Amino acid sequence: MAIDRAEGIWNDIQRIRGESPLVHNITNYVVMNTTANALLALGASPVMAHAREEVEQMAGLARALVINIGTLSGPWIDSMLAAGHEAKRKGIPIVLDPVGAGATRYRTDTALRLIQELAPDVVRGNASEIRALAYDERTTKGVDSAHGSEEALDAGRTLAARCRSVAVVSGSIDVVFEEQTAVRIANGHPVMPKVTGLGCAATALIGAFAAVNPSAREAAVHAMAVMGIAGEIAAGRARGPGTFWVAFLDALYGVRQDDIRARLKIEEA
Amino acid sequence: MAIDRAEGIWNDIQRIRGESPLVHNITNYVVMNTTANALLALGASPVMAHAREEVEQMAGLARALVINIGTLSGPWIDSMLAAGHEAKRKGIPIVLDPVGAGATRYRTDTALRLIQELAPDVVRGNASEIRALAYDERTTKGVDSAHGSEEALDAGRTLAARCRSVAVVSGSIDVVFEEQTAVRIANGHPVMPKVTGLGCAATALIGAFAAVNPSAREAAVHAMAVMGIAGEIAAGRARGPGTFWVAFLDALYGVRQDDIRARLKIEEA
Amino acid sequence: MAIDRAEGIWNDIQRIRGESPLVHNITNYVVMNTTANALLALGASPVMAHAREEVEQMAGLARALVINIGTLSGPWIDSMLAAGHEAKRKGIPIVLDPVGAGATRYRTDTALRLIQELAPDVVRGNASEIRALAYDERTTKGVDSAHGSEEALDAGRTLAARCRSVAVVSGSIDVVFEEQTAVRIANGHPVMPKVTGLGCAATALIGAFAAVNPSAREAAVHAMAVMGIAGEIAAGRARGPGTFWVAFLDALYGVRQDDIRARLKIEEA
Repeated sequence: MAIDRAEGIWNDIQRIRGESPLVHNITNYVVMNTTANALLALGASPVMAHAREEVEQMAGLARALVINIGTLSGPWIDSMLAAGHEAKRKGIPIVLDPVGAGATRYRTDTALRLIQELAPDVVRGNASEIRALAYDERTTKGVDSAHGSEEALDAGRTLAARCRSVAVVSGSIDVVFEEQTAVRIANGHPVMPKVTGLGCAATALIGAFAAVNPSAREAAVHAMAVMGIAGEIAAGRARGPGTFWVAFLDALYGVRQDDIRARLKIEEA
Repeated sequence: MAIDRAEGIWNDIQRIRGESPLVHNITNYVVMNTTANALLALGASPVMAHAREEVEQMAGLARALVINIGTLSGPWIDSMLAAGHEAKRKGIPIVLDPVGAGATRYRTDTALRLIQELAPDVVRGNASEIRALAYDERTTKGVDSAHGSEEALDAGRTLAARCRSVAVVSGSIDVVFEEQTAVRIANGHPVMPKVTGLGCAATALIGAFAAVNPSAREAAVHAMAVMGIAGEIAAGRARGPGTFWVAFLDALYGVRQDDIRARLKIEEA
Repeated sequence: MAIDRAEGIWNDIQRIRGESPLVHNITNYVVMNTTANALLALGASPVMAHAREEVEQMAGLARALVINIGTLSGPWIDSMLAAGHEAKRKGIPIVLDPVGAGATRYRTDTALRLIQELAPDVVRGNASEIRALAYDERTTKGVDSAHGSEEALDAGRTLAARCRSVAVVSGSIDVVFEEQTAVRIANGHPVMPKVTGLGCAATALIGAFAAVNPSAREAAVHAMAVMGIAGEIAAGRARGPGTFWVAFLDALYGVRQDDIRARLKIEEA
């Protein structure tokens, strides 16, 4: 199975590198640069556009729409909804990153509204964020707080069922939920949470994979695996979070089929 | 004394690494990414949030509030004030970076208003910025212009007295003023002004130290010392401002007690 | 000629390093940090300011104004126009980067409006963007799409004539058009399009050169040459787009007269 997975991931990477799919991001200020660089390094073509005047046209040109609520404000929510409705009309996959859901009511409410109105194909967050959405919580412990892994898994399963979408719970092990299935990816490195925007980059890469793979679940699994594998390669060349980030972009850019075959740690259930 | 200082700095670093205090930043677009990475590398937990709808709740979750006026606009000022008032109510330290004060009237006026309404615990800027605020100037020479060091010191002393806060004047020597005291930190490296956002990172690190140290003055001294020491370590591994920045994050992440003991150059008066 | 060019470039670099001209950028969120770092590495003094309340005063302090429409919205357009009119009044050079012109009507219209109202001294874009403006197209293929090189050259010539400005078409060969002249710069490296913001950095560097060189055409040629030469030096030290970017900043910071003499590949017609 892991061999088939490695083939599937490699096929998607080759398609992304060959086709450079346009990925439209409405994302937060903190990670716009790093998201664009991660998408470029993988082989995709990123664009950031958030003005109400153009988001529908831009979403209509793209092959995936990535929505990230990390530095939210009113006009951006309007644009997220407008772009999302256009993506729906065109049948383009939508990936949502509910950054900080659970930390403030504004973020939780906005994420829940985006899920309800847009029915995103994939929602990716950390344990706190997924839990806040799965159980419609209004206050948790903040942006990066973690929960016990069992609790996180229940939340992922619940959110996937509730939203009829793919739910990805990121952590030291990433888990991708859809209906009754759960895929666990154990790649990655402990320095990764010390670099800002890696979660957001994962969400954007799911968009790139969804642009070339019709299964949202496969796209999510493949993106999380590539994130983790590139992270392992980068950690081997890095001295800390600064050198890690630049090595990570190099690794995404240069990742080879052998790297995936040799490193992939995946478990399906 | 320098030995006691080194112990104090190290104690704070250990607390930051152990407790990961949440630092709420309302900062400028240019440095959001680098600020988040500097806070993460040190061990703190950064969050950026600026929407009027959520800043009070976010500030209420945080252990320090960092306000930076580098790319100001009207709605952000409202949010800075709202978050600041909430921080005051909760007794959370406020650190202000008056980027560009003195360059335009808008920035000088805004910084003065924030000081008047919020009475921040620490104000950190370069000589031009501190001078513009100390003497309520309305036009100086621009964003990065420097002044003679004696003049800058007078301005720092004046601002600290006028605002009853800690004032930090950054430069080749950083000076931390409070009431009749002045602490000079001579760590750092000349390449540092060639990297954008290091001043803003210093301000954010003051926030992280203030989250674990009840003395705003100590927090400012410790943060400036760690900035300078990490800068020296990074400069030893760098070829220019690009490699410097990534080495700086590595150095913040990996800084050891021995580094502080061996390198700290501090003078108290 | 190439020898004279190398001298001219070097003279400008020395002036930028010596005078640190203030370059006012109203640019997009994705590249604010990288633009500031590129300008600092070259020796200029960047400032980002976009509030309607201060853009005129800031533009009045600067020696060049760089306008970039990469993440456009209504209030920013107002500020671009206000800053541009002030720059005109003061005789400060204006450089325009029409990011994404041709991708959406909003961007094409805005870029055309900025050209018409402000008559920028230099417009720099990729082939798609320049073509959209030269022929007043309303929809092309997206943000990064390329066209045949002959077609791109015609578009550059047309835009320069239509706008009575300098037009720069970036690509594997950069071409600088003014009236009947065309200068081709063949420096650079294929990894450069895999890093976000290098085009935007080129536009900002044109601003820095225009601050010290009264000929907009010379400024554009010199900036594109330095971009390409620094890119070649960086590629020699890099393993992929991550290490490339940090090496690029180092190279801009450290570029020597010999590097320019040895590497410059320029053709005038």
